[in-house]
Amino acid sequence: MATPSESAISAPSAITLAVDCMGGDHGPRITLAACRAFLERHAEASLLLVGAPAAMAGFSHPRAQVIPASEVVGMDDPIEVALRKKKDSSMRVAIQQVKDGAAQAAVSAGNTGALMAIARYLLKTLDGIDRPAIAPQLPNSKGGATTVLDLGANVDCDAEDLLQFAVLGSALVSALTGNESPSVGLLNVGEEAIKGSETIKKASQLLRKAASSDDLNFYGNVEGNDIFKGTTDIVVCDGFVGNVTLKATEGVASMIVDFLRIEYSSSIFSKFAAIVSYPVLKALKRRLDHRRYNGAALLGLRGLVFKSHGSADDVAFGHALDRAYDAARNNLLDRVRARIAHAAPLLARQEPATPVDAGALHV
Amino acid sequence: MATPSESAISAPSAITLAVDCMGGDHGPRITLAACRAFLERHAEASLLLVGAPAAMAGFSHPRAQVIPASEVVGMDDPIEVALRKKKDSSMRVAIQQVKDGAAQAAVSAGNTGALMAIARYLLKTLDGIDRPAIAPQLPNSKGGATTVLDLGANVDCDAEDLLQFAVLGSALVSALTGNESPSVGLLNVGEEAIKGSETIKKASQLLRKAASSDDLNFYGNVEGNDIFKGTTDIVVCDGFVGNVTLKATEGVASMIVDFLRIEYSSSIFSKFAAIVSYPVLKALKRRLDHRRYNGAALLGLRGLVFKSHGSADDVAFGHALDRAYDAARNNLLDRVRARIAHAAPLLARQEPATPVDAGALHV
Repeated sequence: MATPSESAISAPSAITLAVDCMGGDHGPRITLAACRAFLERHAEASLLLVGAPAAMAGFSHPRAQVIPASEVVGMDDPIEVALRKKKDSSMRVAIQQVKDGAAQAAVSAGNTGALMAIARYLLKTLDGIDRPAIAPQLPNSKGGATTVLDLGANVDCDAEDLLQFAVLGSALVSALTGNESPSVGLLNVGEEAIKGSETIKKASQLLRKAASSDDLNFYGNVEGNDIFKGTTDIVVCDGFVGNVTLKATEGVASMIVDFLRIEYSSSIFSKFAAIVSYPVLKALKRRLDHRRYNGAALLGLRGLVFKSHGSADDVAFGHALDRAYDAARNNLLDRVRARIAHAAPLLARQEPATPVDAGALHV
Repeated sequence: MATPSESAISAPSAITLAVDCMGGDHGPRITLAACRAFLERHAEASLLLVGAPAAMAGFSHPRAQVIPASEVVGMDDPIEVALRKKKDSSMRVAIQQVKDGAAQAAVSAGNTGALMAIARYLLKTLDGIDRPAIAPQLPNSKGGATTVLDLGANVDCDAEDLLQFAVLGSALVSALTGNESPSVGLLNVGEEAIKGSETIKKASQLLRKAASSDDLNFYGNVEGNDIFKGTTDIVVCDGFVGNVTLKATEGVASMIVDFLRIEYSSSIFSKFAAIVSYPVLKALKRRLDHRRYNGAALLGLRGLVFKSHGSADDVAFGHALDRAYDAARNNLLDRVRARIAHAAPLLARQEPATPVDAGALHV
C-alpha cells in the first residue's frame, strides 16, 4: 500500500499553518506552547500566529510570524455575532490566511459553530458539495482510529449528503494514512439493507452505486458498536446521530474510569491493587486519551480548516496541529477535489438540496 | 416519596405472567430455569409456561401451568412470517394470554421486530398513542438506571411521537420506582433550545407545554453523556438514534473490558496485579453487567409485554421476569392510561401521524 508521500499527487516542499492562538478555553497559554513544540518537531514547517500581538510578545521563532487580530470569538458567541460583528477575530483572520494562500491550513480551538460558519463564508464549499462536514477520529479495538462524519455540523441530512460525506471521508483517510481505498460503513440500526429510516435506505442505494462505479469502497451498513470494533475505516452518519453517539460514548468511558477510580481508592487493599495495576491503568488512560485523537477536519470547503477541542491542553492542541500539517503535506484538498471530480456523475443531485443556515451566511 | 405499593392505584392480589419459553437463543433450558427461580422468589406469583409440551415435560410446580403452542418464531424470521404463518407460535400464544386476561404481562426473549408486530396486532395501541416504543434501562454514574426510549421500534419519529414517548416513559418509571414525577430529558446535540433538528425543536416546544400543564417533569435538552451521568430519569429520542447510541456505548464498554483483559494478562507482573485487583474488576463487571438491566418494556399497547435480550442467560431472563412482575404488580397499564387521559389535550395531533408498517399488520 502506498504511503501518502509516495502517492501520485506531489507534496509541496514547505507547509505553513495559520493558528488561531486566541481560541479555546485556555487561549495563548496553551496554543503558544503547542506551537513551539510543533516547530521543534517539524523543521520544514512555518506558522502564522494569529491574535493579539501583546499576548504573543514573548514568542519568537525564525519560522513563526505574528498576524495581528484585534478581536476574539467567545466560546458562547452566537454564530451571527462571530460572523457579522467580529470581522477582525483571530479565528476569521486565520481562515483568511488560507483563503489568501498565505497558509495551507488553519487550526482553531474556538467555538465549532462559529468556525464552520466563518470557514464556509470565507472559503465557500467545493463544487458538488452542499454541506461541509466535521470528521474526527475515534479510537477502536484494533488499536487504530475510525473516522466518523458528520459529527455535528449538519443535523438534518438527506441521502445525497451522506454520499458526499463518504467521498469526503475517503479523501481524508487516504491523505492521513496512505490507504487509497479506505472502507466506508453506513451507520444504521441493523446490518440488513432493509432496515433503517427512509433516508438511510436511499443513502445505502447511492453508496452501493458509488461502490460499483469504483468511487468508494463501500462495506455496507454498520451498527453503533462497529465504530469501536474498527469494522470500517470510515463511518458515515448525519450530524445529529454522530454528535449524540460521540457524547454518549464519552459518557460511558467517563463512567467506567470514574468507577475504577472510586473502587481503587475504597480501601487500603484496593489502593495497593491500584499501585500494582499502575502500568495497566496508565495504558488504559493512554488508550482512552482523547487528546491523541484531537483535531477534526472541516471537509468540503475550498481550503483546509481543523478544529481542536475547546478544552485542549498543549499536547492535545499539538495533535490537532500535526493532523492539519499531515493533511496539508499530503494534499488533502487536491485529493478531495480529485475524488469529487471522479464521482461527479453520482454526486449530481436529482433535486436541489434544502438550503442550510442561509441567514447566517449573509454577512 | 411514595413507593409503588403505597400509591393511590391499588395493586391486584396476585399476578400471573405468560412466558414465551421457546424464545431467545437458548429456549427452554434457560427460560425454565429462570421460571423456577422466579416462582421461588415470588410466593404470590403464577406462571403460564407457553411452548411445546414435550420441551416442558420435566417442569412441575403448583403455581405453573403449561399452555401448549406448536410453533416457534425464529430469531431470523421475517416479521411477515412470524405474524401470518406462525399463528400458533409460543410468542403469539403468550401475548394472547394477556389479551384474554389470563395473564397480566407477557415476557419473551424472541426476535424484537416480531414481538412488537404481534403485540401490536393482538393488543392494539392505546388511544392517544400512535407508535408503541421499547424502553430499556441503562446503568448510570449515580448507581441507578436511566430509562431510554425509543430503542429501535420506530426509526422515523415526529415531535408528537417523542411527546408520547415522554408520557409512556414517565408512567413506566413511576410504576417501577415509585417516583411519581420522574424527570424527562430530550436527547439533543446541545442543551440550548435553539439547537437540534426541526423535529427536536418542535418536540422541545411540545414538552415544555406539557411541563407547564403539569403533565410531565420536563428537564430540558440533554446530550449523549447525560444518559450515563443520570442527569434525568428518562431520556427520549427516536428509535434510530436510540438504537445506534445503545450499540455504540456497548461497543465502548466492550473495548475497555477487552483492553483490560489483554493488558492484565500480558505479563507475570500484570497477572499478579489482576489477582490483587480481583474485587475491583469483579465490581466493574457487575456494574457493567447488562443482565441486571435486562427486560425492556413495550409501551403504548393495551397490555403489558416485556422483551428480554435474545442471548439472556437464566439470571438475565429472571431480571426480565422480575421487571414484568413489578410493572404488573404496580399497575403500569392503569398508570399509562391515567397519564394519557390527563395529557389528552396535549397529545391530540394537529395532523394525522405517518402510517407505520401498515403492511406488516394486516395478517
